[in-house]
Amino acid sequence: MFDNPVYLADLFAVAVFAASGALVASRAEMDITGFALLATFTGIGGGTLRDVILDRPVFWVVDQTPLVICILAAILVFFAAPHIQRRYPVLLWLDAVGIAFYGVLGAEIALGMKAAPLPAIALGMMTATFGGMIRDVVSNEVPLILKTEIYATAAILAASLHVVAREAGVPLAAAAIPAVLAGFLLRAVAIRKGLQLPRYRSRPGRDYG
Amino acid sequence: MFDNPVYLADLFAVAVFAASGALVASRAEMDITGFALLATFTGIGGGTLRDVILDRPVFWVVDQTPLVICILAAILVFFAAPHIQRRYPVLLWLDAVGIAFYGVLGAEIALGMKAAPLPAIALGMMTATFGGMIRDVVSNEVPLILKTEIYATAAILAASLHVVAREAGVPLAAAAIPAVLAGFLLRAVAIRKGLQLPRYRSRPGRDYG
Amino acid sequence: MFDNPVYLADLFAVAVFAASGALVASRAEMDITGFALLATFTGIGGGTLRDVILDRPVFWVVDQTPLVICILAAILVFFAAPHIQRRYPVLLWLDAVGIAFYGVLGAEIALGMKAAPLPAIALGMMTATFGGMIRDVVSNEVPLILKTEIYATAAILAASLHVVAREAGVPLAAAAIPAVLAGFLLRAVAIRKGLQLPRYRSRPGRDYG
Repeated sequence: MFDNPVYLADLFAVAVFAASGALVASRAEMDITGFALLATFTGIGGGTLRDVILDRPVFWVVDQTPLVICILAAILVFFAAPHIQRRYPVLLWLDAVGIAFYGVLGAEIALGMKAAPLPAIALGMMTATFGGMIRDVVSNEVPLILKTEIYATAAILAASLHVVAREAGVPLAAAAIPAVLAGFLLRAVAIRKGLQLPRYRSRPGRDYG
Repeated sequence: MFDNPVYLADLFAVAVFAASGALVASRAEMDITGFALLATFTGIGGGTLRDVILDRPVFWVVDQTPLVICILAAILVFFAAPHIQRRYPVLLWLDAVGIAFYGVLGAEIALGMKAAPLPAIALGMMTATFGGMIRDVVSNEVPLILKTEIYATAAILAASLHVVAREAGVPLAAAAIPAVLAGFLLRAVAIRKGLQLPRYRSRPGRDYG
Repeated sequence: MFDNPVYLADLFAVAVFAASGALVASRAEMDITGFALLATFTGIGGGTLRDVILDRPVFWVVDQTPLVICILAAILVFFAAPHIQRRYPVLLWLDAVGIAFYGVLGAEIALGMKAAPLPAIALGMMTATFGGMIRDVVSNEVPLILKTEIYATAAILAASLHVVAREAGVPLAAAAIPAVLAGFLLRAVAIRKGLQLPRYRSRPGRDYG
């Protein structure tokens, strides 16, 4: 199990998202149960949606390791957060790593279940963004997915590159590593430079409705 | 596949809900990814919940057509919305068509999976309202389901008429068409006349708690 | 079926949560459909999530009784609520009974599906809290899970005691009854005394971010 790179990447993404959830708990000054809940919901949320939609056994029911990782991440952040000067940037960067990994991983697992390319990309995007969406809705943060700078687009880019490469016969690692990097870099530029796609604008003089 | 009326009705409901999601994206002035996400979540949300609860293969994983329709609806609305004088009424009417169709369709699919009448009606109602609920929660619109005028009741009416007729042995089209029309008409009157059911009122002098 | 204690406990928890949902509908002055929807979503929400994650047949699809109970609870509360002097405490106590029952029941069902201890506790907690979370989000109440006093911790306590006892070979009733009581008592003390766990505090002088 621990020599399976997809499994290890999954645990890594769980840890990264769990830490982001615990950081949000620290911003909301929750108790240790709140830390554990937000870390767990954020860490396993995306993969749970993916497994339920693909009708696979849900990954944390058959294997306790992901839950152990979420609880450890919660405890670690509970004690480490006071020593972090500014928590929001740490949260953003953890989330950026998470969406790039989970975008590719969700797509890879969907392809392995014989999903067609477009559903595989959609599942990659959902796996990448759902945990963070739960985290932000439950804790009353503004969902990252609603902010104006590029976010879900980075997950879609990572998932799309991976699916195109895999459909072309590229081996797992050679497809996944550039796809994760591309998704992460796009999101990184969005965080640093506030990069946005062109937005829809109502015509001047039009009413809002 | 394209000669199957249930399948075609499903695609029609997906298109209608996807367009309503894209209109909400235009009201929130999102970028093209935001249009695609909201169109997709709204278009496939209800059917996804239905398929997961009934433990069927999720309809857009096994067949790419619904996702293609959602993306096309998003692109179409992105370019067409500036030419629509008032978008909210268009959204309301699309949604009204969608809930009538999906109320009947969800119930029909549940009956086909051997669900009993009451669960079939409940699944029809959930299929009809869940996509719009995601659309409104994600975009911070007031959920239509929470407004005071008749909304979920129209989906329940459509699903109930269809289930009663089908249980009485009426063929598919003869049951479905009047049920869809009745659900749509009830919602139409609610939109035009602000039709409400009697609401619960606290007694005067009672505190809110 | 009605001589199965797990089944009867499930129906009892459905009734209690459904009544809490209908009370929230009365606070929001909804119409009778709103009462039925909120009672149903709250009553069956936790068990639906549990069954979907465990890939069991969803309990209210195969058996109409839970839906009948939710609708009856909605009708009862619609007519009884005006005679209740203060509804919020009734809601809180119903919810407390519900989370203690559902925490144990979710864990028991998960163990019966061969889940490991930690996932069984997590599923107990989710079964206990998910219906109330839907209730509070849909109706714009502050989710109980976000309040500062002990809430999810009580569900975790009930689920944990039950799982430990069952893993040690204790029979169902001898494990479940003390676990339900312990979870309920912890939540009762939290309601009466405002009992909290220690919360994370930012260091003075640290900025919020």
